[in-house]
Amino acid sequence: MFKSIIHEPVEGNKHVPHIEVQDNKVTVKCGKDAMHPTIDSHYIGWIKLFGLKDKVLYELGSTNFWPGLSEPMTQFQIPEIKRFSKLVAVSYCNLHGIYESEVALQ
Amino acid sequence: MFKSIIHEPVEGNKHVPHIEVQDNKVTVKCGKDAMHPTIDSHYIGWIKLFGLKDKVLYELGSTNFWPGLSEPMTQFQIPEIKRFSKLVAVSYCNLHGIYESEVALQ
Amino acid sequence: MFKSIIHEPVEGNKHVPHIEVQDNKVTVKCGKDAMHPTIDSHYIGWIKLFGLKDKVLYELGSTNFWPGLSEPMTQFQIPEIKRFSKLVAVSYCNLHGIYESEVALQ
Amino acid sequence: MFKSIIHEPVEGNKHVPHIEVQDNKVTVKCGKDAMHPTIDSHYIGWIKLFGLKDKVLYELGSTNFWPGLSEPMTQFQIPEIKRFSKLVAVSYCNLHGIYESEVALQ
Repeated sequence: MFKSIIHEPVEGNKHVPHIEVQDNKVTVKCGKDAMHPTIDSHYIGWIKLFGLKDKVLYELGSTNFWPGLSEPMTQFQIPEIKRFSKLVAVSYCNLHGIYESEVALQ
Repeated sequence: MFKSIIHEPVEGNKHVPHIEVQDNKVTVKCGKDAMHPTIDSHYIGWIKLFGLKDKVLYELGSTNFWPGLSEPMTQFQIPEIKRFSKLVAVSYCNLHGIYESEVALQ
Repeated sequence: MFKSIIHEPVEGNKHVPHIEVQDNKVTVKCGKDAMHPTIDSHYIGWIKLFGLKDKVLYELGSTNFWPGLSEPMTQFQIPEIKRFSKLVAVSYCNLHGIYESEVALQ
Repeated sequence: MFKSIIHEPVEGNKHVPHIEVQDNKVTVKCGKDAMHPTIDSHYIGWIKLFGLKDKVLYELGSTNFWPGLSEPMTQFQIPEIKRFSKLVAVSYCNLHGIYESEVALQ
């Protein structure tokens, strides 16, 4: 059931977590150009960042947003970021399920 | 990538979140009989509970565990629990990915 | 500023996290008899459980509640619970600040 | 007990969450110049951002860090940030307790 609500990344969709990497800093926001709204009835609840290393996907950090109080953008700073071959971001919308995206690091 | 690390429920696997419902109280633990270990190098990081209503899967609550300090068990109390047709629990293991399970309420 | 919004435990107040320990299981709820409400405009956002050992207060686990979707009750299972001399629970209300309570284990 | 482990901000201490505001973006890191370490035995577990409005301190967002996997830095984007008169950041170190700091917005 949970697996079935995970969407494939779709270009231009405001739910898809957009990943930007600059050195060891990783910014993730929903979405790339226009931002997903945050109101009591419709919001991004959290964004998680994972890193892939030796076929294991480690959760690196996670940010929670309260409805109406913070927009779906967060930033992480990853020590030795190059040990991960890929970064994967996951976001949860209270009405539309889970979205994910990824970037290769190497 | 994230979707690919989500396992199907397997009977007897310590990662699978086991759900018990008693009235409006929902207990979730990994796993059903023997508990998944919690040490610095191998632990369940969190358990989330979702509820299905009108084809939307709402996150109801989420519990975080620190390595070595709390075992993968949590309990939630859901107001008007019968508005959900199904409960879905999701767990994250730092080495083995995401596991899920579900129970029908109606 | 944060320190100033932390209230002393007051008997009968619905915000105060009530702690019950049974073996290694710890149930925390706001409050002891009647439960704090959970609606979009007024809710307990989280309950955290800490354990005191050698003058260090370790966070053991933390549960997040979404407004209207889960009531302020959670349960933790603590390995080797007797290594802690005291348990401290902390709750956050979106309108009334932080409340805490504690129980001695030894 | 919880209240007693909250430290006053001390200039130069790596635990103190340093707040930088640029328009509606708020960056918080521990500490200002040198960063607090993140290893299995010693880490910042989370940083929370609060906003003060009409004497109520609202939690705006919260970021969790896993030991060794993400350094204590996060960023939030606050809609209508000027409705808050003050921002307060709070950090948790697994060995040294809770630190806080604040900035006035108006």
